[in-house]
Formats: sequence, structure tokens, C-alpha cells
Amino acid sequence: MQKIRLGTVTALVFGSIFSPLPASSASTGIPTIREAALQDNVAWDFIEGLTTEVGPRPAGTAREELARDWAVARLKRLGFANVRTEPYKMPVWLRGRDEAEVIAPFPQKLVLAALGNSASTPNRGLESEVIYFPTLADLQAAPDGSLKGKIAFVSHAMKATQDGSSYGYFGATRRQGPSIASRKGAIAILIRSIGTDHHRLAHSGVQMWADDVKPIPAAALSTPDADQLVRIIGRGKPVRVHITLTSKMLQDQPSGNVIAEIPGKDPSAGVVLAACHLDSWDQGTGAIDDASGCGIVAAAALHAAKAGPLRRTIRILMAGAEEVGGDGGRAYFSAHGAEPHAMVMESDFGSDRVWRADYKLPTGHDALAARVSAALAPLGITQSRTAAGGGSDIEPLVKAGIPVIDLQQDGTRYFDIHHTADDTLDKVDKAQLQQNVSAWAVALFETADAPESLGVK
Amino acid sequence: MQKIRLGTVTALVFGSIFSPLPASSASTGIPTIREAALQDNVAWDFIEGLTTEVGPRPAGTAREELARDWAVARLKRLGFANVRTEPYKMPVWLRGRDEAEVIAPFPQKLVLAALGNSASTPNRGLESEVIYFPTLADLQAAPDGSLKGKIAFVSHAMKATQDGSSYGYFGATRRQGPSIASRKGAIAILIRSIGTDHHRLAHSGVQMWADDVKPIPAAALSTPDADQLVRIIGRGKPVRVHITLTSKMLQDQPSGNVIAEIPGKDPSAGVVLAACHLDSWDQGTGAIDDASGCGIVAAAALHAAKAGPLRRTIRILMAGAEEVGGDGGRAYFSAHGAEPHAMVMESDFGSDRVWRADYKLPTGHDALAARVSAALAPLGITQSRTAAGGGSDIEPLVKAGIPVIDLQQDGTRYFDIHHTADDTLDKVDKAQLQQNVSAWAVALFETADAPESLGVK
Repeated sequence: MQKIRLGTVTALVFGSIFSPLPASSASTGIPTIREAALQDNVAWDFIEGLTTEVGPRPAGTAREELARDWAVARLKRLGFANVRTEPYKMPVWLRGRDEAEVIAPFPQKLVLAALGNSASTPNRGLESEVIYFPTLADLQAAPDGSLKGKIAFVSHAMKATQDGSSYGYFGATRRQGPSIASRKGAIAILIRSIGTDHHRLAHSGVQMWADDVKPIPAAALSTPDADQLVRIIGRGKPVRVHITLTSKMLQDQPSGNVIAEIPGKDPSAGVVLAACHLDSWDQGTGAIDDASGCGIVAAAALHAAKAGPLRRTIRILMAGAEEVGGDGGRAYFSAHGAEPHAMVMESDFGSDRVWRADYKLPTGHDALAARVSAALAPLGITQSRTAAGGGSDIEPLVKAGIPVIDLQQDGTRYFDIHHTADDTLDKVDKAQLQQNVSAWAVALFETADAPESLGVK
Repeated sequence: MQKIRLGTVTALVFGSIFSPLPASSASTGIPTIREAALQDNVAWDFIEGLTTEVGPRPAGTAREELARDWAVARLKRLGFANVRTEPYKMPVWLRGRDEAEVIAPFPQKLVLAALGNSASTPNRGLESEVIYFPTLADLQAAPDGSLKGKIAFVSHAMKATQDGSSYGYFGATRRQGPSIASRKGAIAILIRSIGTDHHRLAHSGVQMWADDVKPIPAAALSTPDADQLVRIIGRGKPVRVHITLTSKMLQDQPSGNVIAEIPGKDPSAGVVLAACHLDSWDQGTGAIDDASGCGIVAAAALHAAKAGPLRRTIRILMAGAEEVGGDGGRAYFSAHGAEPHAMVMESDFGSDRVWRADYKLPTGHDALAARVSAALAPLGITQSRTAAGGGSDIEPLVKAGIPVIDLQQDGTRYFDIHHTADDTLDKVDKAQLQQNVSAWAVALFETADAPESLGVK
């Protein structure tokens, strides 16, 4: 990357947004909110409670229903208004047994996890030769039909990035690899886990079959197992693997969103929506994904409104079924998309510190961005020149043009844990969690109490 | 700890051992050996090969036999003399299914691994209430019969130490806990893994039943699962757990040691024995425990003797069945204990750097210790005032009074990995491994070529 004189660029791009403003009357409450939220226990208690008393909560299962009941009870106890569940139905993929072993030339077990929507193998499993592709591009370049009867193996290694951007790029192996492999005739596909750790824990995650392909068994190997399989293949002898991935699909299972509010003084000013998701993958207890996000937004809303009602209603959306395709976010949009929304924000990237704020606001709202940034700066949070984009739970609202602020969390260690059995409470750093609550509290306060229209009125 | 003036104490304790000596003729070869060994690839290739081409190799199984065949072939190819296996028979405990779940009050799966010699549950498992003991002392204090029909749970947390000493203390929970629990009437015992990590991978390990107790199912929970169970119990409701630990015992299974030598010029001067173990636990590929030790001692012996035969024979002992009680070490002693041994050393603590040398030498051999320490010092290795004690594979020889040097490895992260599925090649740091080879090479050179008698003649 070329070195640029940052001062000049900043002035050009952010000239009006980030110029200092005189303190407004609202800003006198900011230091108090920020400091109180840094001592927060509500978020930790929420995460500890949900992960201990409910644990894993896959979308569309009885465990997710338990999570909704738990969240409703907790949100009522915390004093939220209009606490309710909003049900919908969805198809559910359920994991069975995940087993694999190298049969030849060096027999040994492999650790793996079926990917969401994987086809099931027969109960006795299936066995075939493994064909290795170092990258997804190599798999794509394989001639049609060339994998007939074989097991494809793609071992494209992901490295950690602070902004999590490597997930988008390398995650394509999980999202697209299974469909590509099926199209070329493979009877199953193994991928290297989309993860940055070195533990014998496989990273699950959803993938959707392209319309034109037959679903095949698809699974992720732990990164040490992927390394091992690459080494075994490197010995130059044909490598045969036996895979047993039993799973099933159920149609029309109950899922739902949980909604809670802190009512504002001016219903016509639109709601500020703070989103997270209640469901988790099945292997861990979903502490960082996404009990943390739910703890953060609930705690922050309470801190923001502690001194009394703000102009706008803060609405908490604890979405269902984020992990498997965003059914909860779509159900929310179907039910509430026509209501005025002044702002949407989402917390779904763990519990490590917020390091950057991104904005996407209507023209003429630079002063609001400047006030939010000024409120965040004492927490060590910088601003970006990247437009905010939200996440799965609020995607339909963002696409509909609702303003959005992203409080970007440090993702350096997120993909060590993401979608593995290791997503447990011990991975949550309470001090960093409290910084999140503080950042969210001041951002919600500034936004919910902003005199600006935010496109609503 | 009181601060002491280290210089004074060192002078008192180590006065004669560590005073500088004039360079001997032998010492001119030391820098060459030390530097060449720091570039070693033999140890890495040994570890990579054994863990890839054999993988897990539990004692007394066909996989351990594969490992012996592999090691014999590799040692012959490396140019060792008198390469051979020395068989013996042993009882073998074989792991089956390891499954557990909390039934009430918060149903969820737990990750665990049966401990060696655990009794098997019925195939359908067993279920009972869990009785929690924070420490082993609390379990010991429970009245006799008070655990009748219950599952004991001891969650004594171990912390990392550089010298590994916390394993001795906290490992008592694994070694003694099952017998104590059985004696008090428990139908099963769960312990917190004897480990220092925070991953959903349970640490296995052997335990031996006391003569007066009935074996019961015994398993270690991963540390996050132990934390979770403590939290669940902390809610104050009775906690019921279902455990399925199927396993079996076989009698008179074949195991064996692998021996290889670099013959010395003076057979009557006694051998220098460099030991490691070939067997591993079943969950990982035994990279740090103990393919590393075997790679280190084999590579170091070659570096030590590169310039030609030394005075004494260097004998490599790659012992079988260390993990399950030291059958290989005892078999070696039965076969060879009467032969003159000038020195025994063992490498069985991973592949992280050697940081300290401990000695136990005959009276009057201070000059040899000083020469070894001087050869090790450029590698950043200090000396201790602790007497060397060896390890399981050489325990009978050490008890018989054979001189011993311990090249103590840094154990800070060893118990993150030890006896888990995570014991894989990626945990080996090649630079630290090469430092081990270098330290061993100079220590073997000085010892095998020493003019001193070392109690032999």
C-alpha cells in the first residue's frame, strides 16, 4: 500500500463529519453514561446466565425456545417494556454423528464437523479417494465430472485480521465449495475449517446449496487435521478416507425473535433498533456468538436511558436463526419494516473491544456522526472512511436504506473460536465486554436523543 | 519468598561445580557440535514422520507396533548400529465411547475423556446426582459411604509453571481421586482435566486403582466443561449427569522397546543411555509426548558422534508403554540393568527450549558438571541446585544409582496440550526443538567422551 499523508485525506473525506463541535446540552450526560457503563455487570450476567442455564441453542430447536423464554424473563426483570416473542416457522438441519478416518495409507481418525445443510451419509458412512485442492480456485478449475465418485478436499488457510475481512474472502470455501464440488461429481467434500486457531476443534457454519446441484455430505476438518491430511497426501500415495456424517432436515419448525423496548418520548421520531441473535451453533454455548451481543445491547440500552426517557424508543431485537440464514432478521422486517426506523445497529462479533466506528447516515447528518465519535473517542475508538454495513439480523433494514452505525469489534481472535465447541464463557474478557457496553451506551444515547430527523421526520 | 543475595548462595552451593575450568582438548569440538545441531533437521523429520505416518500409538496396540517398525527403519536409515526391538507383554486398557450430558437442571452435553484403567459404564451409560468437591482434600474429607450411588466431581484447577511442578501436585486428583471416590461409595468420578488450557479438549492420563477399591468409571472434563459444571452446581439445584464411558481391558498384549546405538571405543566404560518413549495417548498424535523426545535424542546422538566414535557407546532407548505405567522402562531394566551404565538421560517434556540443567553425579565429578554447564551456557541454559531425578523410562536405573543429568524443558505451555487431541505436529516450534537437539548433543558429547569413571571404572 502506498503511504499517504493521512491528515490531508482525512480533511478531504471527513472534513465536515469530524470537525469539533460545541458541546450540546445532551453531551453533558455522556461522561456519566460512559463511566457507569464501564462498570457494567448486566452484560456479563446476561452472557453467564444464557450460556449456563440454556447453553447451546440451535435455531428452530427446543433449545432455542428455551433461550427465548430465558431472554423474555431476563429482559422483563431488567425493566424493559413490551417484552415479547414474535414466532415464525423455518426448516431445520440437525447434526447427527460427525466421524472420519484415514483408511490408507496411514490409518488414523480425523476431527471434523458437518456444515449446515450437509447431506447425510448412509449410517455406515462412505469411503473414497481424496482429491486435494490447495485453494478454492483450484477446485473451481477442476474439469467438470473430474471428481466423479471422489471426495474433494480444499485446504485454503485463513489468517486473522482485526476487521474480520479474511472471513469474507476465505469463507467462500465453505459457502461455495460444497456446491462446486457437487457440480463436478464429488460424493462428499471436506474443507479446512474457516478458522484461525490450531486446535482439534472443527468450525461449523452454514452453507446453502446452489439450485442446480445435488446436496452431498460436506464437513470442515479442524485446522490440525487439515494440515495432517495435506501432509499425508504429500507422501504421494492414494489417500482413502471414510466419512460418517449423519444429519436430518425438518420442515416448519418453530423459531422466533425476542423484542424489548425502552419507550421514547416521541413515537413519531422512529425507533433506534439494537440487534443481536439468540441462536447459536450446537457445538459450543454461543458465548461470543452471540450471547455477548445480546448482553451488550441490553445493558447498553439500560445505561443510555438511565436518566429518563430519550426522544426515541430504543428497541432490542434478539433475533432467532441468524446462524442458518437470517430467518429472524427477515421475519422482523416482514413484521416491522414499514414502521419508521431512525437507526439500526447490530452487535454480533464477540466481546472484544470496539476499535472503530463506521457510519452510514442521511446527507446532512455529519454533526451527529461527530458527536457519536467524540463520545466514543475516550474509549480509544477511531473512525473509519468505510461506510457502515450492518450484519445479518438487520440486513433487510440496511438494504431498505435505514441509517446504520457499526461499532466494529476487534476480530483478531474471534475466528479462533467462532462456530466451534470452544465458544464458551471463559473466552469473554469482562473488561473488553464493558468497553463494548460503554461504547454502545453513548452511541445509543446520542442517536436516540438526537434532534436530527435521521430521515424519519 | 525472601530475597537472597544469589551470588553468595551460588558460591556456597555450587562453588566447586561451576568455577571456570581451563578448556580441555575435548571442548574444542563443542562449538562446532552446538552450532551444527542448531541447524538440525533430523529431529523435526523424525517427529513429522512418526506423527504423520503412524499417528496415535497407544501402548500395547497394533499402532504401537507400527511405531516400533517405523522407528527401527528410521534409525537404521540414520546409520545407528544394533537397531532392534525388545518385546514384552502387558495388560492394555482401550477407550470406547466417551459421552456425558447434564440431565438436570440445565440439559447440555459435556466434553470428557475416560482416564486410563477407568471401569466401563454399561453401554446405556449411568446417571446420578453429582457431588462437588472444589479440591482433592475436600473429597478426602468426605465421610466414608457418603458418596454411595453418587458421582463425585473434583474441580481442582492447575496453573502453568515453567518447571512443570504443578503437575505433580494437582495431578494427585487424577492419580488418587478415583480410588478415594470409589472407597467412599461413588459410582463414578469426574475430575477437572489436569491441564492449563481453556479448550473443549479433555486431558486423559493414567491412574491406578488402589488394591482395596472397586474400579469405577473415571473421566476428566475439559476445563471449560468443569467451569460450566461448577457454575451449574452453583445455582443450588440438584445436578444430575448421564455418563457413558465404555472401555475394555485386554491381558498379555505385545509391546516393546526400540534400541539403537552409536558404539563407543571403550566398551568397559559403560553406556550413556538417552531415553524417550514411542507410545502416545490415543486422542492426539503424540507430537510433544513424546515423538519430540525421540527426535531430540536420536538427532543429538548423531551430532555428538559426528566427528567419530566417542569413548562410550551412546544407546538410544525408545521405550514402549510409558504413558500407562512405565512397562517399557521396567522391561529395559530387567534386560539391561546389570550392564554398566555411565549416565542416563531422558527427554519427555515436549519440544520447548531447555532452560536449566540438573545433575546427580558421583562424588568427585564436579568438573564434568562444570564442562557440561559451560557447553550449555551459550544456549541460554542455567544450572540448578536441584538434584536431577530423571523420568519414568529411566526410573529403575536412577533408583539403582546410575548418574543422571536432566535437561529441563520449559513447561509453561506443555500442560495446555498434554494428553489431549491437541498434541499434534503444529505445537512443535522448530527453533526451540533445535535448541533441544543442540543442548542434548553437547551434553551427550561431554558425557560419552568424559575421562571420568562415572562410577563404572
